[in-house]
Amino acid sequence: MSAKKFSEDHRVVYYETDVTGALKIGQLVDLLMLVSGDQSDQVGVTDEKVSAQGLGWVVTQHMMEITRLPRANEVITLSTQADSYNRFFCYRDFWAHDQDGNELVKMHSVFVMMDRTKRKIVRLPEEFVTPYECEYTRKIERLATPRPVEEISAQKDYHVRFMDIDGNHHVNNVHYFDWMLDALPGEFLLNHRLVSLNISYRQEVYYGDQVLSEVEIDQENLLTKHMITTGSEQNCIAECQWVKRSE
Amino acid sequence: MSAKKFSEDHRVVYYETDVTGALKIGQLVDLLMLVSGDQSDQVGVTDEKVSAQGLGWVVTQHMMEITRLPRANEVITLSTQADSYNRFFCYRDFWAHDQDGNELVKMHSVFVMMDRTKRKIVRLPEEFVTPYECEYTRKIERLATPRPVEEISAQKDYHVRFMDIDGNHHVNNVHYFDWMLDALPGEFLLNHRLVSLNISYRQEVYYGDQVLSEVEIDQENLLTKHMITTGSEQNCIAECQWVKRSE
Repeated sequence: MSAKKFSEDHRVVYYETDVTGALKIGQLVDLLMLVSGDQSDQVGVTDEKVSAQGLGWVVTQHMMEITRLPRANEVITLSTQADSYNRFFCYRDFWAHDQDGNELVKMHSVFVMMDRTKRKIVRLPEEFVTPYECEYTRKIERLATPRPVEEISAQKDYHVRFMDIDGNHHVNNVHYFDWMLDALPGEFLLNHRLVSLNISYRQEVYYGDQVLSEVEIDQENLLTKHMITTGSEQNCIAECQWVKRSE
Repeated sequence: MSAKKFSEDHRVVYYETDVTGALKIGQLVDLLMLVSGDQSDQVGVTDEKVSAQGLGWVVTQHMMEITRLPRANEVITLSTQADSYNRFFCYRDFWAHDQDGNELVKMHSVFVMMDRTKRKIVRLPEEFVTPYECEYTRKIERLATPRPVEEISAQKDYHVRFMDIDGNHHVNNVHYFDWMLDALPGEFLLNHRLVSLNISYRQEVYYGDQVLSEVEIDQENLLTKHMITTGSEQNCIAECQWVKRSE
């Protein structure tokens, strides 16, 4: 049985791009999550139905491979397909393609369902997974965990703003990526291109929190390791692989 | 002679909305600016042509009246029309309507053209204004200037992030609005609804700048006055009129 695939086109616009003219990573993840939400609406697993049971989908990990980031005014096709699920985890794939059919980005993500009151992961209700027609498996995927930051090369702190919080009272994806990447020196961001990313979400961040973004830069291997913390809480860790922009 | 009007539809999506579920003001301004850019492309006044002469459009003021802000998944129609121009200023109107044709937002904006190297305002070149078929006038509009902040009720500071800068090396609109509004207490933002806004841009903000956002709250009249500064530089002032959310 092959799961349903769902696609939507999107025109990248100037305010979604960074100083290099390329689509921002956080914005790209937002766009992909939107496609996933639109598929859920289409198959009848609406946010309203999920909320009515006191539940909500939560992303625990994204693993992304980037061939090329699209530029302003480029039309891209965003696709998603539920890959498989077990008792607690739902695995989902995402793609972005250009208009010539070239793959720009591939992302593999892990979703769980959270009891909103108890803040605990629940067993996936059948009615919320079968509509995607994806395969049940007993296997739990052993995905690489981002390696921890050992030596801090740079850090910046942020406070969570009113406008960072969406209608679900969540800090939007885009802000985690902004905090992580902004801690890198501007020169590094201008001269390198992100080619892969592994991000693991641990604890939510809330409005008014003071966020610390720490990064370890391995200049030789062009690898950066990131950690977002609020006080003693570790909220998110990530690992990024870069290449020189000329390459 | 009536100027050409240009419209585009947009579906508001969850990550464009704030915690109240309404479209964020900064995002709305971004969307309106995009419509204006798309009209410019359509009439042949492309960014490339303007840039080729070492010039660029710059907004100096927005005056906005808000009847209702649209919510996630609502489709809105965004329109723009160049109103008139004189030697230095181009006046442009913007609207957002819902699908029943109700006016949600009206905005009147002032554009100038800047010499990118000299950072000076230039006389508007005929070839960049006539394609919009709007009226030439000798009159310079006397628009109300936002009243200055006199007594600071609250303030927050920010640094300009790498991701705040777009492909034109400008800090995007959305960030000015975020800085201004985020300086207000969360309680105020939750319990009041913005009904009008007058923002005047003075000096650009650059990557790495430390930004101070100060606000004076007139609780009796539900009026807030805002000021964005970087060191001794005043970058932006604004005045906002609010009503209680229950009204």
